[in-house]
Amino acid sequence: MAKHLTKRSENYSQWYNELVVKADLAETSAVRGAMVIKPYGYAIWEKMKEQLDKMFKETGHSNAYFPMFIPKSFFSKEASHVDGFAKECAVVTHYRLKNDENGKIVVDESAKLEEELIVRPTSETIIWHTYKNWIQSYRDLPLLINQWANVVRWEMRTRLFLRTSEFLWQEGHTAHATKEEAITETEQMINIYAEFAEKWMAMPVIKGTKTDSERFAGALETYTIEALMQDGKALQSGTSHFLGQNFAKAFDVKFATKEGTQEYVWASSWGVSTRLMGALIMAHSDDNGLILPPKLAPIQVVIVPIFKGEEQLKEISEKVDIIIDKLKAKGISVKYDDRDTQKPGFKFAEYELKGVPIRLAIGKRDLENNNIELARRDTYEKKIYSQDGIENVIEDLLNEIQENIYKKALDFREETTTIVDNLDDFKAAIEKGGFVSAHWDGTEESEQKIKEITKATIRCIPIKNILEDGDCIYSGNKSTQRVLFAKAY
Amino acid sequence: MAKHLTKRSENYSQWYNELVVKADLAETSAVRGAMVIKPYGYAIWEKMKEQLDKMFKETGHSNAYFPMFIPKSFFSKEASHVDGFAKECAVVTHYRLKNDENGKIVVDESAKLEEELIVRPTSETIIWHTYKNWIQSYRDLPLLINQWANVVRWEMRTRLFLRTSEFLWQEGHTAHATKEEAITETEQMINIYAEFAEKWMAMPVIKGTKTDSERFAGALETYTIEALMQDGKALQSGTSHFLGQNFAKAFDVKFATKEGTQEYVWASSWGVSTRLMGALIMAHSDDNGLILPPKLAPIQVVIVPIFKGEEQLKEISEKVDIIIDKLKAKGISVKYDDRDTQKPGFKFAEYELKGVPIRLAIGKRDLENNNIELARRDTYEKKIYSQDGIENVIEDLLNEIQENIYKKALDFREETTTIVDNLDDFKAAIEKGGFVSAHWDGTEESEQKIKEITKATIRCIPIKNILEDGDCIYSGNKSTQRVLFAKAY
Repeated sequence: MAKHLTKRSENYSQWYNELVVKADLAETSAVRGAMVIKPYGYAIWEKMKEQLDKMFKETGHSNAYFPMFIPKSFFSKEASHVDGFAKECAVVTHYRLKNDENGKIVVDESAKLEEELIVRPTSETIIWHTYKNWIQSYRDLPLLINQWANVVRWEMRTRLFLRTSEFLWQEGHTAHATKEEAITETEQMINIYAEFAEKWMAMPVIKGTKTDSERFAGALETYTIEALMQDGKALQSGTSHFLGQNFAKAFDVKFATKEGTQEYVWASSWGVSTRLMGALIMAHSDDNGLILPPKLAPIQVVIVPIFKGEEQLKEISEKVDIIIDKLKAKGISVKYDDRDTQKPGFKFAEYELKGVPIRLAIGKRDLENNNIELARRDTYEKKIYSQDGIENVIEDLLNEIQENIYKKALDFREETTTIVDNLDDFKAAIEKGGFVSAHWDGTEESEQKIKEITKATIRCIPIKNILEDGDCIYSGNKSTQRVLFAKAY
Repeated sequence: MAKHLTKRSENYSQWYNELVVKADLAETSAVRGAMVIKPYGYAIWEKMKEQLDKMFKETGHSNAYFPMFIPKSFFSKEASHVDGFAKECAVVTHYRLKNDENGKIVVDESAKLEEELIVRPTSETIIWHTYKNWIQSYRDLPLLINQWANVVRWEMRTRLFLRTSEFLWQEGHTAHATKEEAITETEQMINIYAEFAEKWMAMPVIKGTKTDSERFAGALETYTIEALMQDGKALQSGTSHFLGQNFAKAFDVKFATKEGTQEYVWASSWGVSTRLMGALIMAHSDDNGLILPPKLAPIQVVIVPIFKGEEQLKEISEKVDIIIDKLKAKGISVKYDDRDTQKPGFKFAEYELKGVPIRLAIGKRDLENNNIELARRDTYEKKIYSQDGIENVIEDLLNEIQENIYKKALDFREETTTIVDNLDDFKAAIEKGGFVSAHWDGTEESEQKIKEITKATIRCIPIKNILEDGDCIYSGNKSTQRVLFAKAY
């Protein structure tokens, strides 16, 4: 089983595809565009979920579950929403199969649904239909609900984790008495996503708002976190939408205020998906495989014994068991790979491929000297340590690795971000890759033309933007601020 | 908002339906047969998931995720499987909507799938198709995988939690080198389900195997746990299937043995679903609402202040904060309901309805005496305690309540289980409700006739059965053991 990867410099896209499969994260399935998330990949996703769920609950959100099927008519209720999603919907039309006269399994035409059901591409419509019954008075607000679910958006060109017809995600849907409160919630959630990306995924992100053309179908404002991948392309990693009263009006959700008047409710929705897996992989990994931040690594430490014969293995294992106990007592996850069917070199390569942050190796001579060899996945540094107190070394090192890979990604982003003031420089910068900060006149026309010429899109209008006068790189018209462009996934 | 429930003795079925909705567990949705699981209900399900997931992982299983859509042709590959599920499948036939000439949203007929996709009613077929690539050698076995997912089985008559078109569940799918190992796994999992039901849900269950006619479509043996509800009807609460080599043969999954021969793999699958929520509700609750076992209660202790004016509330809250801290330090979940918009009596009724195991009430006089009033949900007992050390009283009491409601359910089951030896007694016993232990000749004909006459089905052949000679209550033919009958959900 050859585990060598195509080099990133040769073909980044192929490197990614191979890595996802060879590191046992996911694979394509028999169903066009849908993936199988394999146990190792799912274990990373579970760690992401666990942390995000904790952050949602700490900020007062509860989980619930809404039906996956949405009556077709619901989509028509919010006009821009249906435009945004109608072209990629899986449609359920029948509810029974049968045997035909030849014994073949066919769809039973007599079991046709009166109204077709759409497999949710997102749940605003079914949820706001439900909220109508849940919200009567200001006492019912705010309503702060999240759902972990699968969704389907039919895609013609799919890539594992980045773009699949079915994917897993969470979608928060909140209802508020005032516009200000809904905007505060929208901003709070993009901040939570940014914190998660930076502190857990070790992936720096830029927070900003989307332009009109890139906004969520049905939103008044879309906040995004944008991350930079190693090939210089941006990846939208999470979005939080201020929906205004659009869905409240579409589904007639009003509440009685303290003063006794009837008002439409204000809304937000926000989500991240298994796409984060793709971001995680592309932000850090190298030509030998995954590099996982310790906080999300299913295995933080792997121990490989170097031995000849059962007797030696037994001696080594006795020492290893002590180390394992000490690591587990610190809440560090550890795997001891004592298989005798594979050589140490094979195992080293395998755990490099799988991105295990720290590898320990221990052989006969180490036993004699009370030593152990420690290798870091992020820097490939190897060093001999005493077995005594190795758990403290590892605890510190895991934090150091977490910080180091964040810093590395941040340095890379800063090095590859360019500020330009005219179209030629812009083209060159986009060609080179990375974020490009440039003036834009605020019109959809200029945005569209720039995209046609360079394939770059406006990733966001950074929240921390400083206003400055300038000229749009395309039209030459007046601009009040720079926006962030990049080619994107 | 009237929260009174129909009494169980008047109309058990209506009592259940009302309780599910009024206790904020779930409600029907705009989509026929699909439910909305509300935050309070979902919080209970999350606790169930968390514990089950822990038990699965402790026994070596990993989670993964497989596509929700299954190509129609996959179903035909295992003959009895398709017979079992074809009649209740949601079928996806198109992948796009469009606007017609009148601007109405319609299905785009040009976007018809070449092969229809079935929304999974269970995932054996897609998973075994995938396992073919994962299993080559004995080294790849056992493969121990679980999936948490939504599934769809189209139902004409639905009831919240008990029978819905879409529901949430887990499905384990394992592959083994030998028959013995697969059977051991199948039995291990039914034992885990039984342990979960008894220790966490406080619900006694009987473990047994299903008859041929009640077996899972594609299994050689189905193990079940059967629980008794308060109306004397049984509820199948979890199943574990020994699949033999049926799916391995259907999907051509072979492995190289240590000896170098090629053999088909042996399999198990096992699942529990949100149906457990229905079981939990019906096993314990009473005419005033839910009774939740403390181990699954989202709120274990609620504290209600009895106060007049802000000054009194402030004084009470100071004392309550101390108690809350002490309870939280013990890992006990507590809610302090200091709303001034509802009267204490209203709150008492609300938390009774929601099944909070322990309620504390504290008023002005309690402050003076350093006391607090404690009420148990399961027995309605009220008692005054000193505030000092109340956290220890509560810790012990939560365990006592957990045991008490288990014992109550067990006593009820034992009281309502009847042993009969002829059809007349059988009819009377079934009419009365509860499990009925009777001789059966082992034929599907007798089983079917008994069902026609009494509506009772064979719930299981108990694992702990003692063999004894007898005569079938229907046919009079020889029987070697008693089996357990009941009317069932």
